[in-house]
Amino acid sequence: MSTQPASILSEIVNEATGRRAFLTRASTLGLALPGVGLLAGCSTSDPDQTGGAARSPADTGTAVPQAGTVLQNSNSRLDTAHDVSGHTKSTAEGAAIGVQPIPFRRYDPALPPLSRERTLRLNWSATEVPIHISKDVVVAAWTFENDIPGPVVHCRVGDTVEFSLTNRGKIPHSMDFHAAQIDPKVAFRSVLPGESLSFTFRPRHAGAFMYHCGTAPVLMHIGSGMYGAIIVDPPTPLPPAKEFVLVQSEFYLAPKERGVQAFDYNKMLATMPDYVAFNGRPSQYVEEPMRVKVGDRVRFYVVSAGPTHPCHFHVVGEQFDTMYLGAPPAMPLRGVQTFSVPAGGGMIFELVCDIPGEFPVVNHGFGHGQKGAIGFLVVEA
Amino acid sequence: MSTQPASILSEIVNEATGRRAFLTRASTLGLALPGVGLLAGCSTSDPDQTGGAARSPADTGTAVPQAGTVLQNSNSRLDTAHDVSGHTKSTAEGAAIGVQPIPFRRYDPALPPLSRERTLRLNWSATEVPIHISKDVVVAAWTFENDIPGPVVHCRVGDTVEFSLTNRGKIPHSMDFHAAQIDPKVAFRSVLPGESLSFTFRPRHAGAFMYHCGTAPVLMHIGSGMYGAIIVDPPTPLPPAKEFVLVQSEFYLAPKERGVQAFDYNKMLATMPDYVAFNGRPSQYVEEPMRVKVGDRVRFYVVSAGPTHPCHFHVVGEQFDTMYLGAPPAMPLRGVQTFSVPAGGGMIFELVCDIPGEFPVVNHGFGHGQKGAIGFLVVEA
Amino acid sequence: MSTQPASILSEIVNEATGRRAFLTRASTLGLALPGVGLLAGCSTSDPDQTGGAARSPADTGTAVPQAGTVLQNSNSRLDTAHDVSGHTKSTAEGAAIGVQPIPFRRYDPALPPLSRERTLRLNWSATEVPIHISKDVVVAAWTFENDIPGPVVHCRVGDTVEFSLTNRGKIPHSMDFHAAQIDPKVAFRSVLPGESLSFTFRPRHAGAFMYHCGTAPVLMHIGSGMYGAIIVDPPTPLPPAKEFVLVQSEFYLAPKERGVQAFDYNKMLATMPDYVAFNGRPSQYVEEPMRVKVGDRVRFYVVSAGPTHPCHFHVVGEQFDTMYLGAPPAMPLRGVQTFSVPAGGGMIFELVCDIPGEFPVVNHGFGHGQKGAIGFLVVEA
Repeated sequence: MSTQPASILSEIVNEATGRRAFLTRASTLGLALPGVGLLAGCSTSDPDQTGGAARSPADTGTAVPQAGTVLQNSNSRLDTAHDVSGHTKSTAEGAAIGVQPIPFRRYDPALPPLSRERTLRLNWSATEVPIHISKDVVVAAWTFENDIPGPVVHCRVGDTVEFSLTNRGKIPHSMDFHAAQIDPKVAFRSVLPGESLSFTFRPRHAGAFMYHCGTAPVLMHIGSGMYGAIIVDPPTPLPPAKEFVLVQSEFYLAPKERGVQAFDYNKMLATMPDYVAFNGRPSQYVEEPMRVKVGDRVRFYVVSAGPTHPCHFHVVGEQFDTMYLGAPPAMPLRGVQTFSVPAGGGMIFELVCDIPGEFPVVNHGFGHGQKGAIGFLVVEA
Repeated sequence: MSTQPASILSEIVNEATGRRAFLTRASTLGLALPGVGLLAGCSTSDPDQTGGAARSPADTGTAVPQAGTVLQNSNSRLDTAHDVSGHTKSTAEGAAIGVQPIPFRRYDPALPPLSRERTLRLNWSATEVPIHISKDVVVAAWTFENDIPGPVVHCRVGDTVEFSLTNRGKIPHSMDFHAAQIDPKVAFRSVLPGESLSFTFRPRHAGAFMYHCGTAPVLMHIGSGMYGAIIVDPPTPLPPAKEFVLVQSEFYLAPKERGVQAFDYNKMLATMPDYVAFNGRPSQYVEEPMRVKVGDRVRFYVVSAGPTHPCHFHVVGEQFDTMYLGAPPAMPLRGVQTFSVPAGGGMIFELVCDIPGEFPVVNHGFGHGQKGAIGFLVVEA
Repeated sequence: MSTQPASILSEIVNEATGRRAFLTRASTLGLALPGVGLLAGCSTSDPDQTGGAARSPADTGTAVPQAGTVLQNSNSRLDTAHDVSGHTKSTAEGAAIGVQPIPFRRYDPALPPLSRERTLRLNWSATEVPIHISKDVVVAAWTFENDIPGPVVHCRVGDTVEFSLTNRGKIPHSMDFHAAQIDPKVAFRSVLPGESLSFTFRPRHAGAFMYHCGTAPVLMHIGSGMYGAIIVDPPTPLPPAKEFVLVQSEFYLAPKERGVQAFDYNKMLATMPDYVAFNGRPSQYVEEPMRVKVGDRVRFYVVSAGPTHPCHFHVVGEQFDTMYLGAPPAMPLRGVQTFSVPAGGGMIFELVCDIPGEFPVVNHGFGHGQKGAIGFLVVEA
């Protein structure tokens, strides 16, 4: 390959304006991320990319091509570069402007129950659609299942997750589950508009994992809303608790255009967000708090989707009696006031609600946290 | 409540200039933090806010109203918005300009000894006063006890801390101890100028905890100097050591006005500090180092007050043989060169001084650390 | 000393332009870092700085003056301030411009084998030389051994490292090994151009440690390329694995001048890098991946050189079954997707390659990671 990564990266940083620069950039960055071959202009099969068939699915991930699905894009121009070129915004070709936006609603932070079955079948769509993240702010979102974050997935170590993604948008998208052990080149490759992909995996480790679109440039796809949480229970369940999932993320927005704010790639690179939110809506749990009873153990699964900043997670008026940096129940920390969940990571925070009250749940890095990464845990007597 | 968090937050980020925008902002953000009801325009009692009386104080925090103290502000306009409106600086109404500044002095980093009594009675004042953070730089500080940081509190797990705060400033202030398990809505609520509040708590977990003013906008109150450390010893004391408390914080300053630099809220939101310091004075322990003897075990209690950045804590020429991410003595890490203390968090770092020398103590994230988060540990033969 | 740290720091931050400001700054910051006396204008001997002779070398570090080496600079003007004054760039006096640049080559990420001998003798040079970090980008580097990063050092707990540094550049440089327990004032002091220094140490803790130039301003010396990794094995070796060393760092560059980009100190202070790279070349392991076989255990020693940002380390399609925050083998974390290695720190990440595939290795904080902190681990069947 004759790419010149540094010089092209230089174009991103120092210019990132012209259409040509962006096309070049996106193609190059594609090389560095899942769906790699897709962008290299290779339109025919590559043995390394047809994988899955000869691989034992036992205890590992497999990626089986669906009928009617090509394993790689047939034309490199059809990847992300196609649509975000020129203005480097999420509104490529008006995809998400001029459409009726999805109304504001609270994102339910409660961890959904486990299914009885040990196989989860998830048939999701990637979409490009305007969404209200507050009554007054509409963003030109790229989503899984028309929401930011996408749905919470809840399973156990050793369960089988059969996942399929249908791309109902106008640019390529993909899916990267942090809980999967699988060949990203095959399973996490980009899916063309109108096409589908499926893969299967069995989570090996318990924890709070991120998922996200990995199509290049991944900063743009995460930054535009394509992320969520998959919670994996250990073989022996953790103690009973009221369980909440909080996905922190940043919003980098362009000015309103016909009532909608696109996501802005250059602002993402400048790392100064307009909002930081738990579960996609700034301060939503201030208005409608999380509620538990005195005596409840509360378990927070905190995922930092980023795309860039960590979450310095803290509950005002409380400490975490138990905290897991890695897979529970190993190596619990005790008596933690605040811990930093890295971008692209997830951690578990537990406390016992001994007293009634209204406890703010915050990102204690307030320069960013003040922008909406805040909510209330109300403990009722 | 009919607030519209996102749109108002938008005003902060994109404008944050006009008086009206700021008033709206501060009121809204108030909703998201302790003292919530205070800002919502509710001037009558709320059962949830009168708490404390019916709650058992045993092993938990209690907040008992002092004679002459109202449990909530009677007028939402009296909160922070009142004074920082317009120029969004800490010099509201000249409170801290035109007053004789507190002279420069070294902040003693030594952990103060435990008292013999198991009950600590702390009667503190919140003030607004100019302070020398160096010979030439005077800041328009908001403080606990006329200092940045406030005094170090030292107690044991299970001790009783009886705390009262009298607000001798011109705007509301409050106190949030990270070591307390208590209803923030009651105990950490804002106190009007001239009034007092008291509450009692018993720390449950050992560690290095932050305390700070939680009045909205909390970024402004932490950013203007209202923070400090409370060190909680475990039931079984840790091994004998020379113990130091280092509170790292950032300074975001406006240009000099009559010799004083106010804190600047917009710079806080931009997260690019002018100084980063241990214990409130850039590089003070370069001039007057911490001193120990060969053979001493040294224990650093490091608190990152932020408001935004972590401290990548490191001692040049040494490694930490023991480090606690959570409550000691559980789960010690061994052989650590550098660890990141999150904003709003605290950790414990230990080393044994085998050899004499001069060991720089730094925030190894030098883009920020170079701005004053640096000092010396001198080990004398 | 009558320095006025805060006011001078103020000059850095608010002006940092004039020659006088910079000279003043560098001298002051020198006080806060190894080589302190060097900048304080002291031209005669100081008992505290002649150390080493009276100190037992057993199990500790020693710093013995080489013949012909002075223990401190004889003239404070000869330190960093001398050469980076005025334009605050790494091209002082054209040192690294107009010289033939070192061609681009891949930095081998494989951990070099241990030597049989228990004593390592390292005779290194500090240099100022232009280096290709990609085919098209040449930086005016300050280096150890003409490379960014410098060579990987590999040893065992208790080995003896006899290190000497000869300064072949035009400004003072020094060496700070995070794996050494030694008096920085002596061992890590600045070496004048044309002179040499040597010291000896025995690493006490296993782990992935950073080394770097500590000459003031340290932000400039780290930021201009003077860093690397020293890997210390525990007394009982860790399980066999394919071992890689990844040093993440940031590049803050000035515009091209005669084909070369100098490092820019003001951009370092603004903390918004142009590139972020593993082992000094953006995206080099995209072009030429790390390669292992199915069944291999892979161990990554990840060092964040900064100078400012952490590395949110992640491997796409995998989880780390074992991770060490401190010295291995104590306290292993299990099932980690992403962990943040602090600037100035190092951590160890392990996974077993069960399946073939192409696994991107990334900094998952994509606002920075997208700028080149990305590569591939290719697992071959």
